[in-house]
Amino acid sequence: TLLTHFNSSGEAHMVDVGHKAVTHRIAITEGYIQMQPETLHLIITNQHKKGDVLAIARIAGIMASKKTADLIPLCHPLPLTQVEISFGIEADKNRIRCQTTVKTNGQTGVEIEALNATQIALLTVYDMCKAVDRGMVIQSVQLVEKSGGKSGHWLRE
Amino acid sequence: TLLTHFNSSGEAHMVDVGHKAVTHRIAITEGYIQMQPETLHLIITNQHKKGDVLAIARIAGIMASKKTADLIPLCHPLPLTQVEISFGIEADKNRIRCQTTVKTNGQTGVEIEALNATQIALLTVYDMCKAVDRGMVIQSVQLVEKSGGKSGHWLRE
Amino acid sequence: TLLTHFNSSGEAHMVDVGHKAVTHRIAITEGYIQMQPETLHLIITNQHKKGDVLAIARIAGIMASKKTADLIPLCHPLPLTQVEISFGIEADKNRIRCQTTVKTNGQTGVEIEALNATQIALLTVYDMCKAVDRGMVIQSVQLVEKSGGKSGHWLRE
Amino acid sequence: TLLTHFNSSGEAHMVDVGHKAVTHRIAITEGYIQMQPETLHLIITNQHKKGDVLAIARIAGIMASKKTADLIPLCHPLPLTQVEISFGIEADKNRIRCQTTVKTNGQTGVEIEALNATQIALLTVYDMCKAVDRGMVIQSVQLVEKSGGKSGHWLRE
Amino acid sequence: TLLTHFNSSGEAHMVDVGHKAVTHRIAITEGYIQMQPETLHLIITNQHKKGDVLAIARIAGIMASKKTADLIPLCHPLPLTQVEISFGIEADKNRIRCQTTVKTNGQTGVEIEALNATQIALLTVYDMCKAVDRGMVIQSVQLVEKSGGKSGHWLRE
Amino acid sequence: TLLTHFNSSGEAHMVDVGHKAVTHRIAITEGYIQMQPETLHLIITNQHKKGDVLAIARIAGIMASKKTADLIPLCHPLPLTQVEISFGIEADKNRIRCQTTVKTNGQTGVEIEALNATQIALLTVYDMCKAVDRGMVIQSVQLVEKSGGKSGHWLRE
Repeated sequence: TLLTHFNSSGEAHMVDVGHKAVTHRIAITEGYIQMQPETLHLIITNQHKKGDVLAIARIAGIMASKKTADLIPLCHPLPLTQVEISFGIEADKNRIRCQTTVKTNGQTGVEIEALNATQIALLTVYDMCKAVDRGMVIQSVQLVEKSGGKSGHWLRE
Repeated sequence: TLLTHFNSSGEAHMVDVGHKAVTHRIAITEGYIQMQPETLHLIITNQHKKGDVLAIARIAGIMASKKTADLIPLCHPLPLTQVEISFGIEADKNRIRCQTTVKTNGQTGVEIEALNATQIALLTVYDMCKAVDRGMVIQSVQLVEKSGGKSGHWLRE
Repeated sequence: TLLTHFNSSGEAHMVDVGHKAVTHRIAITEGYIQMQPETLHLIITNQHKKGDVLAIARIAGIMASKKTADLIPLCHPLPLTQVEISFGIEADKNRIRCQTTVKTNGQTGVEIEALNATQIALLTVYDMCKAVDRGMVIQSVQLVEKSGGKSGHWLRE
Repeated sequence: TLLTHFNSSGEAHMVDVGHKAVTHRIAITEGYIQMQPETLHLIITNQHKKGDVLAIARIAGIMASKKTADLIPLCHPLPLTQVEISFGIEADKNRIRCQTTVKTNGQTGVEIEALNATQIALLTVYDMCKAVDRGMVIQSVQLVEKSGGKSGHWLRE
Repeated sequence: TLLTHFNSSGEAHMVDVGHKAVTHRIAITEGYIQMQPETLHLIITNQHKKGDVLAIARIAGIMASKKTADLIPLCHPLPLTQVEISFGIEADKNRIRCQTTVKTNGQTGVEIEALNATQIALLTVYDMCKAVDRGMVIQSVQLVEKSGGKSGHWLRE
Repeated sequence: TLLTHFNSSGEAHMVDVGHKAVTHRIAITEGYIQMQPETLHLIITNQHKKGDVLAIARIAGIMASKKTADLIPLCHPLPLTQVEISFGIEADKNRIRCQTTVKTNGQTGVEIEALNATQIALLTVYDMCKAVDRGMVIQSVQLVEKSGGKSGHWLRE
């Protein structure tokens, strides 16, 4: 089968990576949360205070990246060597962009860890603002770039 | 502040829900994963076999809903009474729709639990198909409807 | 379908218990670990010392009972009100018996929590003794008795 | 035995709280982290920036309170209704004070949850500053006040 | 003491494996769940549908293998490189056999991870069928074969 | 910034350790729990029985060390190779001393893992004795010695 998470009997398994080379692996992902202008304004205003929504979302995303193998059934546990999350406020589009970079030296990639961090960071923004804006939408969570491993470099066109 | 997750000093806290009424609460959420036609075809074909991608994604989403308070910093732990996840294949749009329903009897809502289940279910699809399609995109993760609690019924227009 | 963990479409779900009565629920389970006489002797001798194998296995079992909903996909999270694990040494049969009692006031039973505690307690015994006896076998993990809920009292014949 | 976490056979158990009344319970705890004046100065300076040490420590403490039953073997799982953590900078004593308030409506108290939150918040401060001050000391983690339950109100003298 | 999980003072510890060679390690385990013929028939019938009991049990077992160090007190955390679970239906004996293979490159073996996966997979079968057959029994959970490490190859006779 | 857990933009991140050498790392920490003489007497008396308070606290501490990266936001996950916890009863000072040693071969140190183990072990003592002594105080949780890594050997003066 082309789907490597299934063995020759068609059953799901955690695929054998034991023979793969340990290489330096990087994944960069992004995602957006769309909201009302008033909500975005509240987040921006709040940034100058002690309890910054985006600072908390960043911590949630970093912590989530470490739990990825706990959440995604066939994902291998990996000791991450770096996790970095940055936010960009796109006021003209009424949305916030979240970009995550995850690195490891390992036998398998860290795309899922980076996507998971992005998703949880954005969901934390939703959680903290839902009392004022229930209609927020998480958009375009995707891989931007990866390197390392047999498949090498990949860049979204 | 309008953002209830911050107290009067502007510091983040897990807001007091102890005085709120225990009501029956429902949240329905949706999200999509966009992919290449070939990838969608592989998933559809695989459905008739033992190791169904969507069946595994469903389990991952259900399990994730139970870990929401572990992932989202200021989210209250809640004993969920029902979690249901269904997928719809939209072949003409090259995407799969995931819809989640979560219910509880509690002092706070289950929107975050349902959104988290949707996100993790979609990310599990990504994980299982990434070897053939790294460019898949998770789209429009959002609340569709909620009921229960002081704010009552909410339906996305 | 007769298997309630699948909905009318045949898809797995966490079944709705929101309408069920909150009743006092008890489950009692048992299981055994079979071993070499020398291994059993070592465990018995060790009991009089600070680092008692069975005391540690008891703690592992109690802690595991609290994580049951994290491990069993369609199991509802439940706030347990009591967990008790006792061991019986059956020297003539070269085995140790583990009995677990779990109680809650809830909308669903605690059989799985008690079985999980029994299994993990026995596996902890295996882990601590495997250097001297790799061939140990975990046997007859089963429900002994339950009460509470709509199905009422059940006793193994 | 006077130690209720052991049964009449002297074996550890998760004590039965099923018959106890559900009451409103509050626990307030405190603790300190002692450090070099330069370290305290760095933390204070950093507070005005995006990545505030104390804001991150607060989030870590709140999240840890929700995992208490996972960490403390005989602790009952409890659905917390409020968690609040505040820091006080005591510049003259070269230390930071952390105070935690936890509330629930439950059959058992939340002292351990509040102490755990305080400890983890302080350890997070240590983690973030250890590169400049390995000698920091966590001091006087203790219960300040509790109310609710059969034992009623307790206030440290 | 012969039990390596206790130090020279007789106290439990997580034994030092830092000096051990990193070798390729494999563990194969098995276990059974005994049930009523009608229950087995239901599972077999259900296999052809979307929500396959054994497919879900497989996922639960794989996910559990990754949490072994969280459950078994003195077990070392290990990054597993492969987990594979297969089921065999033994209709004449009214039981299902579960076989698990776990692999890693590490300083300690993966027997406990494989036994844990087997146990949780079988318990998941129990959970999903308990409404129709409370009397099911988990039997003969045991190591079948292991290789790697100082003790080398071991095969159950 | 001198605080390495913040990047050049002042945002928190999990710092890159991918380029650091893998060295053998050891951390030794200590902490105390102060109590009433009667409480200490109860713990000592209980030690000769099956359910030893300190044996249980030791297990809790060891298990907690494995969850450190789950609790401390910016802490790297590390596969620990040894964890050892010992208690000393200081009857003249009405307190118990807890000392933890953690070892790994890794790219970052294990101070936080050892401090976390010490804290949780002491909090477990508190939990098990709180019914007789709510006023117990956890004192002087601190690093005693560390070795390995670029910063080399460190010993508390």
